[in-house]
Amino acid sequence: MYVGLAFERRHPAGPHGETGMQKHRVTFLPNQKSIEIQRGTSLLEASQRADVFVNNLCGGEGVCGECRVHILTGERQYSDRASAFFSQEEIENGFVLACQTKVLSDLEVEIPLESRLEEEQIMTGEGRESAEIQGGTSPERIPEAPFYPFKPLIRKVYLELPPPTLEDNVTDIARISRELRRKLGWHSFDMSLACLQHLSDTVRDSDWKVTATLAKDKGRFRIQKIEPLDTSTRNYGLAVDVGTTTVVAQLVDLRAGKVLGVEGSHNLQAQYGEDVISRMVYACGKGGLHPLHDAVVKNINTLIESLSSTCHVPREFINAIVAAGNTTMSHFLLGLTPCNIRLEPYVPTADVYPQILASDIGIQINPRGVLETLPSVASYVGGDIVAGIVASGIADHPQIQGLIDIGTNGEIAIGNNEWLVCCSASAGPSFEGGGTRCGMRATRGAIERVEITDGKVKVRTIANAKPRGLCGSGIIDCIYELVRNRIIGSDGKFNRAIKDPRLTLEDGIPQYVIVEGDEAEGGKPIVFTEPDISNLIKSKGSIFSAIKALLGYTGLSFDQLETFYVAGGFGNYLNIPKAIAIGLLPDIPVQKIKFIGNSSLTGARLALTSEEAFEKCVNVSRSMTNIELSNYQPYMDEYIAALFLPHTDRKLFPSVTY
Amino acid sequence: MYVGLAFERRHPAGPHGETGMQKHRVTFLPNQKSIEIQRGTSLLEASQRADVFVNNLCGGEGVCGECRVHILTGERQYSDRASAFFSQEEIENGFVLACQTKVLSDLEVEIPLESRLEEEQIMTGEGRESAEIQGGTSPERIPEAPFYPFKPLIRKVYLELPPPTLEDNVTDIARISRELRRKLGWHSFDMSLACLQHLSDTVRDSDWKVTATLAKDKGRFRIQKIEPLDTSTRNYGLAVDVGTTTVVAQLVDLRAGKVLGVEGSHNLQAQYGEDVISRMVYACGKGGLHPLHDAVVKNINTLIESLSSTCHVPREFINAIVAAGNTTMSHFLLGLTPCNIRLEPYVPTADVYPQILASDIGIQINPRGVLETLPSVASYVGGDIVAGIVASGIADHPQIQGLIDIGTNGEIAIGNNEWLVCCSASAGPSFEGGGTRCGMRATRGAIERVEITDGKVKVRTIANAKPRGLCGSGIIDCIYELVRNRIIGSDGKFNRAIKDPRLTLEDGIPQYVIVEGDEAEGGKPIVFTEPDISNLIKSKGSIFSAIKALLGYTGLSFDQLETFYVAGGFGNYLNIPKAIAIGLLPDIPVQKIKFIGNSSLTGARLALTSEEAFEKCVNVSRSMTNIELSNYQPYMDEYIAALFLPHTDRKLFPSVTY
Repeated sequence: MYVGLAFERRHPAGPHGETGMQKHRVTFLPNQKSIEIQRGTSLLEASQRADVFVNNLCGGEGVCGECRVHILTGERQYSDRASAFFSQEEIENGFVLACQTKVLSDLEVEIPLESRLEEEQIMTGEGRESAEIQGGTSPERIPEAPFYPFKPLIRKVYLELPPPTLEDNVTDIARISRELRRKLGWHSFDMSLACLQHLSDTVRDSDWKVTATLAKDKGRFRIQKIEPLDTSTRNYGLAVDVGTTTVVAQLVDLRAGKVLGVEGSHNLQAQYGEDVISRMVYACGKGGLHPLHDAVVKNINTLIESLSSTCHVPREFINAIVAAGNTTMSHFLLGLTPCNIRLEPYVPTADVYPQILASDIGIQINPRGVLETLPSVASYVGGDIVAGIVASGIADHPQIQGLIDIGTNGEIAIGNNEWLVCCSASAGPSFEGGGTRCGMRATRGAIERVEITDGKVKVRTIANAKPRGLCGSGIIDCIYELVRNRIIGSDGKFNRAIKDPRLTLEDGIPQYVIVEGDEAEGGKPIVFTEPDISNLIKSKGSIFSAIKALLGYTGLSFDQLETFYVAGGFGNYLNIPKAIAIGLLPDIPVQKIKFIGNSSLTGARLALTSEEAFEKCVNVSRSMTNIELSNYQPYMDEYIAALFLPHTDRKLFPSVTY
Repeated sequence: MYVGLAFERRHPAGPHGETGMQKHRVTFLPNQKSIEIQRGTSLLEASQRADVFVNNLCGGEGVCGECRVHILTGERQYSDRASAFFSQEEIENGFVLACQTKVLSDLEVEIPLESRLEEEQIMTGEGRESAEIQGGTSPERIPEAPFYPFKPLIRKVYLELPPPTLEDNVTDIARISRELRRKLGWHSFDMSLACLQHLSDTVRDSDWKVTATLAKDKGRFRIQKIEPLDTSTRNYGLAVDVGTTTVVAQLVDLRAGKVLGVEGSHNLQAQYGEDVISRMVYACGKGGLHPLHDAVVKNINTLIESLSSTCHVPREFINAIVAAGNTTMSHFLLGLTPCNIRLEPYVPTADVYPQILASDIGIQINPRGVLETLPSVASYVGGDIVAGIVASGIADHPQIQGLIDIGTNGEIAIGNNEWLVCCSASAGPSFEGGGTRCGMRATRGAIERVEITDGKVKVRTIANAKPRGLCGSGIIDCIYELVRNRIIGSDGKFNRAIKDPRLTLEDGIPQYVIVEGDEAEGGKPIVFTEPDISNLIKSKGSIFSAIKALLGYTGLSFDQLETFYVAGGFGNYLNIPKAIAIGLLPDIPVQKIKFIGNSSLTGARLALTSEEAFEKCVNVSRSMTNIELSNYQPYMDEYIAALFLPHTDRKLFPSVTY
């Protein structure tokens, strides 16, 4: 293998003590954050400790090439893997993979633009933000969330109690329970010891005027706390979508269910791996569970701090959180070992999670505030999909409807108010910009739209910045335009007979130049290669065959689908006709395909504000049948047939005209 | 008032800074425990901090005279109250009340015998220990505790789980729940987060052979923990009677309900006051709740340590505790403010207590072990009486039966399987040796039997030691013998016409010499005074009138009582015929009066070993009607009528012949 040359003498970090107790200072540019760290630590770990984000898809295995950094001063080392990701010139200039580079001296390290975490279009809302409506082929607007009666998970009730007399000297807690029964009609109430310990003083100091906070848990009501005087107007809750890429929280006023604000942030777990698999590998290996648990808790606390400040709601007035996430995220959030989720036969620790005090896992709301995590269905069908089913209303109507959430995995559910089936297909990182030579996440400078006409390429980038690479929607556009212009065939191979200056070869690999080097950020051309196309075909084939196999399992055909909801961040930016044309989505009338936005967040909010919605989530998670695709032969057959553009069976895509 | 003289110059501890930050060392004899303490602290507090027990009935108010200590070296001060408790000679020799004396120099302090905590006859058993059967008038042996099906509060179930496969890949916790349902037939199981967090590793590391520990709480089953391999044989529980005077614990093997051992100790709260009232005064005043809570927790931990060592059962194998105590003790145990129990209208914080982790209040058993506190009925009818009702079987049969537990309060319950009424009468400290010139608790040297024949007095002391004073049963004997010999009349006044050298006057107060000074420990005669008799008549009058008023409330008469159970430490040493003859107990056939021993402990054990018994306790506490005597006019009328020996209405005591 080709091995790059370092400027300075190679300094091996052998087993002979050089990596001992000596420490070095590493300073990261451009933000000048610096950390003193033990000699021999990897540069990636140093950046994590310094809270400096460096992209990292593979979890530090040296295979994704995302953690490119530039050593400005200090000692460097050879990296066997460098040649796969850097030109000779870059290597000579000091570019290294952070995960493969050990700290052997004081260092000054620049994080180049492409390795930095930048502001992304985080879907904080339930609507379609920055959406461009596609003329006559535009999908319908997001439907309203279904109606559920307003009965929040946690309620505050103000009580004016009659003071005790010799004739009526029941205990303090019995007096409170009696008044609660009168007001609410419930039968009995559990209570915590903490709530009893100062009760006697509380009721008397406040002249028998108190506010009880009640949580519902498994059909029983628990008195969480008794506060002096009337605090019933101070009752807030948080709905949280714990996504692999982003964590989004809504602050809700639990007096009436009004959403006061919403904030999103990148999942800080990204520093331990871009997707759930690499994070599990990290957590179940040397890294352990704690960093991943801590990261998502930090995410949520930061969102709470921000929402609390923006909406002028003190944190201690927040009494409840409902979190929805995929099964792995839910495990990380609660500190449950997720290691067997990724190993056959794919067994999570739990699919139903206990109601806990948010403070038990370090989340900073009211110390007696509760956290509910929406139940999962299986290892790869989590509470986010359950929330989506409830948010879309699929389980409420007799019509057959479907839901898909496309990310590294594509989770698909189909059913109605009588039955529900679901599955999860591994899509690979294509739709998130991974596995593609010039792929990137949907951040500033990412090409999100491509049009090719008569050999001319028109692109549009996020924030209209200088192009840096291709994000998911850009990649789909690319493939569609290439096949429409017959530059590639149905098999995804370039038509080498064509004379097009943009069609070039690099190291024998055919590629199409989308943006010339002089027009691109960084000066290098943005290309789309034959292997990129092959990866994308596998990804779309996996998703489409999963939809088809799942429908086949139920004995239905595509035309029996009343609605097909597309949820999640990627879905939101998808051009539906093009997604159909490349064979990612089934060829059904475009008006039947509806964007549903961040339905995980919507479902979490419904569960926060309505007991019925919460119970619906529990019932959906219990009753939905999960089909394990890796174990389902029809899926494998469908998959092979789907590795064409749009499909080997053109009859499945009658509307596709190219 | 007569004020004693001190040896040394009086050193006032005024408000001018002399009590500032200076420290002195106080050494207590005979056990040489020593402590450095801030100048100005009371000697009683110093003894408490040094963990040296000094008797103290009044909670440090300077009125009971129990905390006599002897200052051997160091500076002393006058005490206005000393003259009431010490002779001039004692004062000059350095005797002081610890609670009224401030530490103003280094001190050497001897705790005299009478102020020390000594081994008492603690009723650890459910039987009658060291009982002497009184010939033909002996009450029956303690009846067997009623039968309840063996279903302990906490159960361990060994599970051999089928490992997951692709066809059966339910979550780890679902696999466990399914197997538990198969084995036990229950429907659903709650679980704590702690139990889930390492579950995934536990089941796999132990090759799917695990033991689940299950707790029942309010009709639901909670999985407390999952341990590797088969630990089902290691399941122990503790029944605890938290008495005002003593704390007694039984260690029970929860595989079959076998009692392995029993230990008792003095309630360490005694240092803050002898009875519940003075302890509440302490807790609700300067002292605060913590010392009392901590004391009883320390009691229980010490008993656990001792039982654990004697029975070779490691503490972490103990998975459950059921505690029974009066309402104040239950509040102290759980750290609930008890302050409104003693203030009209006598309102406790709670009568039903939540199941908690024992570790939450610092009790050292398995960290996931639970603690149940048996429910109370009212401020002065606690879980100990509820336990007694269940232990006696009163609530199980149609016959009318009664239960009495005599201490500082006399708690009385009457009823059957359809109804139950109860009340609590303040008896004062007479039956525990208080309020009596030469009274003492039932410890070594206490006179427990007295016989007077032809002017000759025969006494028997505990442990056959040299007589030191009169304990409760001795006092009852005394009164009975004095009235039988016509030395006192029915009104409790000495017959001054009698010429008896033992009948003397001191400071104008008539008294009867039970033991001459030369035969008594300490050299001073042990006497029984007219005020002592008056106090005892009030005490017995209070108890008897409560029994009569309670029966009257139900519309019943004494002869309708099928059985009258006498519970508790004092009851155990009572001479029944004499107790009837002085008008303490109703004049019913002696075979209807049955000692039931420490029925609080028995009831706690039943609740520990049987769900049904536990539920019976809850139902008894809910359904029993408490009559507040202070608010019940018939009681006041009965009380006045009962201030005679045996009673103003001799027809109530047909069998009494003197």
